[in-house]
Amino acid sequence: METIKTHRTFGGELRYVRHDSSACRVPMEFTIFLPEAALRGEKRPVLYFLSGLTCTAENFTVKAGAYRYAAEHGLVIVAPDTSPRGDGVANDERYFVGQGAGFYVNATEAPWSAHFRMEDYVVRELPSLVEAEFPVTSARGITGHSMGGHGALVLALRHPGTYRSVSAFSPIASASNCPWGRAALGAYLGDDVEAHRAYDAAVLVEKAEERLPILVDQGTADEFLADQLKPELLREACARAGHPLELRMREGYDHSYFFVSTFIGEHVAHHAQALVS
Amino acid sequence: METIKTHRTFGGELRYVRHDSSACRVPMEFTIFLPEAALRGEKRPVLYFLSGLTCTAENFTVKAGAYRYAAEHGLVIVAPDTSPRGDGVANDERYFVGQGAGFYVNATEAPWSAHFRMEDYVVRELPSLVEAEFPVTSARGITGHSMGGHGALVLALRHPGTYRSVSAFSPIASASNCPWGRAALGAYLGDDVEAHRAYDAAVLVEKAEERLPILVDQGTADEFLADQLKPELLREACARAGHPLELRMREGYDHSYFFVSTFIGEHVAHHAQALVS
Repeated sequence: METIKTHRTFGGELRYVRHDSSACRVPMEFTIFLPEAALRGEKRPVLYFLSGLTCTAENFTVKAGAYRYAAEHGLVIVAPDTSPRGDGVANDERYFVGQGAGFYVNATEAPWSAHFRMEDYVVRELPSLVEAEFPVTSARGITGHSMGGHGALVLALRHPGTYRSVSAFSPIASASNCPWGRAALGAYLGDDVEAHRAYDAAVLVEKAEERLPILVDQGTADEFLADQLKPELLREACARAGHPLELRMREGYDHSYFFVSTFIGEHVAHHAQALVS
Repeated sequence: METIKTHRTFGGELRYVRHDSSACRVPMEFTIFLPEAALRGEKRPVLYFLSGLTCTAENFTVKAGAYRYAAEHGLVIVAPDTSPRGDGVANDERYFVGQGAGFYVNATEAPWSAHFRMEDYVVRELPSLVEAEFPVTSARGITGHSMGGHGALVLALRHPGTYRSVSAFSPIASASNCPWGRAALGAYLGDDVEAHRAYDAAVLVEKAEERLPILVDQGTADEFLADQLKPELLREACARAGHPLELRMREGYDHSYFFVSTFIGEHVAHHAQALVS
């Protein structure tokens, strides 16, 4: 593990880290914010933030304005990349498949299966590394934006007991029912619709083993709302299953980080309530 | 004046605007945040933020996290570009001279004098436009970062009565006494040292007509501190002149927006206290 650079911010420290990933079999980068208490050696809980299509950790790190709130609540925030990257890694000319578009699955199809194992990376490898190398507890929350909102919901639902809290901004709510998701899941998992449904938040919520309350914020002026995000499918599935969901439609907000930054404080507080004992 | 795009954020609206500048004789772009009260038509005061070398308004707009605080205080924030730009505009291969490095002066030397009239643009044209086109009062504050911190201090000191409040992040405190400033002022104003000193905050403060209190935040781990920024020259000049200065040295902080974002809330509050009656 190598620290690429460090910035003091909000009384804590932001670090850019690179490490050799065993799950993705390439070097991976993430950012980690350590609040003041963690810098003093006090173990603090961790909130994972998963980013959306075309992003690296950088978009969230510089645009979301999350660290003020993390500092207030004493939360560590870890933001991984959205896929493996590099010359030896498969790619696609479409922005919603390949590098920058891992969709947080373990790919089973060639050529993707060689490196695209973002589920293993986010759920297992990254927390193990973070919990071994930084002053953190094993209390974990997960959130994300767009494809990363899909990732947060799907990984929390597929791995009960792993996260104590979950939320999402403008998530792809039903990946097997939208063009982005069908293209990406088709590439990574093949044509079997059941394999796609295993990574679909609106499907998973109906058979969830635990009823972790879900918080979702969604802008009504989001350009991807009707065709790609479809929060109504999550709302209907949660209603059918009796799964606790707070879906807040935010009038006039779009898909950008100007939306995320407006509500990130409420999400950090939601996670802090579950994670900070 | 043309609105290029709009984002709802923190209950208000952020607009990207382009207009033909009479001062710079090219199209110029700026961003403006209108808090909720302004959207309802209530006239609100304006804080101008001047950016640093290599920046456009975008860096501040997406990284500073200022709009949360502007929304809380009901302040409009306007962020202009750092210079005229375009194929017909003079440039230099050095990042501290030419496009992206206007230094907030009116250039007198060819080829710069044709377009590089950022002082006129920021002090006269931009406020006139903003006050004609948006629901704002004529109460103005000014702040900025690095070269923009220099700009905020110098323009407030050169134009008494124009601004009710002034502050700066990591300003170039004495432009005639550092390599960046000497190169840029030499290009724009020629070799006359007195012309350079007319745009040097530490010089201007000694003969200021009004004693507008100055707030400055400066990181101690700033990579440009000793060679380019030199806040001690401003401190000494303010002490000699009896000019009110609060210079806060922030332990371990660097020159980045991770520093600016940490303290922007305190600066917005400083301006709001002077601007919001």
